[in-house]
Amino acid sequence: MKISEVSRRTGVTATTMKYYLREGLVHSGERVGSNQTAYDETHVRRVKLVRALIETGGLSIADTKQVLATLDADDMSLAHTFEAAQHALGVGGASSGTGRPESRDRIAALSTEHGWRTTAENPGFDVAARALDAFSTIGFAPSDEFLDAYASAAATIARADLAALTTRDRPELVAELMVVGTVLGDALIAGLRRLAQENETAELFPVHTTIHNEKDAK
Amino acid sequence: MKISEVSRRTGVTATTMKYYLREGLVHSGERVGSNQTAYDETHVRRVKLVRALIETGGLSIADTKQVLATLDADDMSLAHTFEAAQHALGVGGASSGTGRPESRDRIAALSTEHGWRTTAENPGFDVAARALDAFSTIGFAPSDEFLDAYASAAATIARADLAALTTRDRPELVAELMVVGTVLGDALIAGLRRLAQENETAELFPVHTTIHNEKDAK
Repeated sequence: MKISEVSRRTGVTATTMKYYLREGLVHSGERVGSNQTAYDETHVRRVKLVRALIETGGLSIADTKQVLATLDADDMSLAHTFEAAQHALGVGGASSGTGRPESRDRIAALSTEHGWRTTAENPGFDVAARALDAFSTIGFAPSDEFLDAYASAAATIARADLAALTTRDRPELVAELMVVGTVLGDALIAGLRRLAQENETAELFPVHTTIHNEKDAK
Repeated sequence: MKISEVSRRTGVTATTMKYYLREGLVHSGERVGSNQTAYDETHVRRVKLVRALIETGGLSIADTKQVLATLDADDMSLAHTFEAAQHALGVGGASSGTGRPESRDRIAALSTEHGWRTTAENPGFDVAARALDAFSTIGFAPSDEFLDAYASAAATIARADLAALTTRDRPELVAELMVVGTVLGDALIAGLRRLAQENETAELFPVHTTIHNEKDAK
């Protein structure tokens, strides 16, 4: 098929598609004749995947490349695919850095309490520890109950994530869902959290409660 | 204090601090003498907040501005602050768009099953529906059990979020935690999810399981 057909099928403009090709995010088509290139179903599928990672997952081009390289690797154990994907993915927009030692210790203790077997290289330690650090900048010290609720929720989600993997019968489909699911699951839980928050807010704070900001507190 | 002192206290370089001032993310200091500006504790606090939103939360400058405007608003009910913050925040890096109608319907049904009272304007519908759309691009149709697990996790988190708000005794501190917590909670759950996933993966996929990618499936 022509590039215009790929564009129609994926909702990605021809200009963007050419950009993906140039960046190596999508494999080249086949030259047919002096001035034409033919694309096939593998291109449609790949363009949709790239679009999902970039637009919904919020990944950068560089991170998308790394994720795709993980998927394209010839020979990788599923555990290693997951590990590689987690490292490539990070968390949308998050800065690098490891977080303060006391924050890391607290996340490690939480992980131990929940009986999680993890390795020190898991990027989740950095991401969670940095979130604790950032909370402390507004003087909020999360209680044990707060962190425990988050960890329980994380365990519930992770079990669902892994159960979903077992429904796929080809290893490359499992790997694809591991990688894409890591990104999209973050978006799904963020969306549902906002819905659940509205419900809880309505119960706790009737609309007529008014804040009077203290200007001098700024 | 001088800008160098704010820099030392916040870990933000003077160059970045000047950028924040220029963009109006941080309020101006007080002119003292012809070539000096004095900053105080309110600047330190604000710079830390901006840094947390941008670096850990992954917000853009524009989104950060909108969030700060919500916090600086003189007179707003807490319910309205939460609503405004949710709209400003979106989800790190996510594209705009409302998702396909069938995806929105499925999220609405899920919300109803969990007894959530929400409004149609809640941005969580868009975010969650787009995640479902993106899952479908790789041929993954989330089961009811999968979505139910995510919704239960979201409810657990939202209850913890709201309980945390009740520990703050001044309305402006409640508002600040609402806004900052919406961003940082996304990062916290994403980090913990990666830790819980590693634990689940180790159980399900022993390291020696190897994938042989089918080249022709690409």
